[in-house]
Amino acid sequence: MIQIYCMAHQDRSDRVRWLLEELQVPYQDHFLNRTNGELKTESYLKLNPMGRVPTVVDGDTAIFESGGICLYLADKYQSKGLAPSLDSLERAEYLQWMVFSVASLECVVARMFTFQDKTQSQIESIKLEVEAQCKIMKVALNKVLEKQPYLLKSGFSAADIMMAAVIPGAADYLMEPGSAIEKYMKNLMARPAAVKAQVF
Amino acid sequence: MIQIYCMAHQDRSDRVRWLLEELQVPYQDHFLNRTNGELKTESYLKLNPMGRVPTVVDGDTAIFESGGICLYLADKYQSKGLAPSLDSLERAEYLQWMVFSVASLECVVARMFTFQDKTQSQIESIKLEVEAQCKIMKVALNKVLEKQPYLLKSGFSAADIMMAAVIPGAADYLMEPGSAIEKYMKNLMARPAAVKAQVF
Repeated sequence: MIQIYCMAHQDRSDRVRWLLEELQVPYQDHFLNRTNGELKTESYLKLNPMGRVPTVVDGDTAIFESGGICLYLADKYQSKGLAPSLDSLERAEYLQWMVFSVASLECVVARMFTFQDKTQSQIESIKLEVEAQCKIMKVALNKVLEKQPYLLKSGFSAADIMMAAVIPGAADYLMEPGSAIEKYMKNLMARPAAVKAQVF
Repeated sequence: MIQIYCMAHQDRSDRVRWLLEELQVPYQDHFLNRTNGELKTESYLKLNPMGRVPTVVDGDTAIFESGGICLYLADKYQSKGLAPSLDSLERAEYLQWMVFSVASLECVVARMFTFQDKTQSQIESIKLEVEAQCKIMKVALNKVLEKQPYLLKSGFSAADIMMAAVIPGAADYLMEPGSAIEKYMKNLMARPAAVKAQVF
């Protein structure tokens, strides 16, 4: 069974759990307590030398980086149809959105979680930067989602899981009322697998 | 022929060009001028709705996000041996480092390029944050590279291209003199394909 090491349902393990629910692949959660030093034990650092979450163990394979984990799992269970095959015309677009969700969008969104020990003026300055970056990405995403209900024309994929798991972190800057992104999120948040995985 | 849209050799198109040189796949560069609005033309926004670089066009396929582009190209030319196959035991580790390079490392390193319009005290605060994050990643990377010359045990891969293209952006915080990372970088920077692609 696939083992997920995380701190809570709503950390970056959320997308991994959601994907596994969609794939109907059984998994087991291991909730680690940062305060107790459980992220820095010798045995955990062997799995993830950064002492971060999530990490997934699948037999002899240990892997970290949520985007990498989801790429790996969606390909491993490709017959379930959540990743286009290597020779699919949609493969490039799929990889683009999988990486965009973490490298472009989450890189910006995550700054909304760095307010601790900051002054009010520093927080305001971070918010302005996040807002400006989100604006560019929001326009691009809305353009795609006004044409089709999912990132890929062919339908729901692991790329939607990644994207929808990241968007709420900066909901104020990304989910304009009545926008295609808002509609997209409502649709995705209602998926039974997302509900079961307690993503939102 | 593969078309690369970029602003300069040393922007995030660097890793794409380097990979294509390693793969010995011909490509053509298109240098766009941001000041002239060439990133915001209707025709370019059709390829990349964010109006950013790099974007790659391969026949009917347009793809952005440097990490996604390199995943796509290394898989497309898998016979050249720069990406483990889907059923390889190293596939998970490969995906992990491909995503880590952009989503974890570059996300932090890129902040070193955001000093414009900042006060000296804001710049110092960014540098401290980058240094702290880089320290965690440096320790993890050195641990791997002390055991083996490349990220994967089996040898050089596209993951090394991604990582080595990102590291110099925060060289002061990542490349300690005499460290495994420094040795790794010296080795990679000397590769004929990297030199030809003008990455460093």
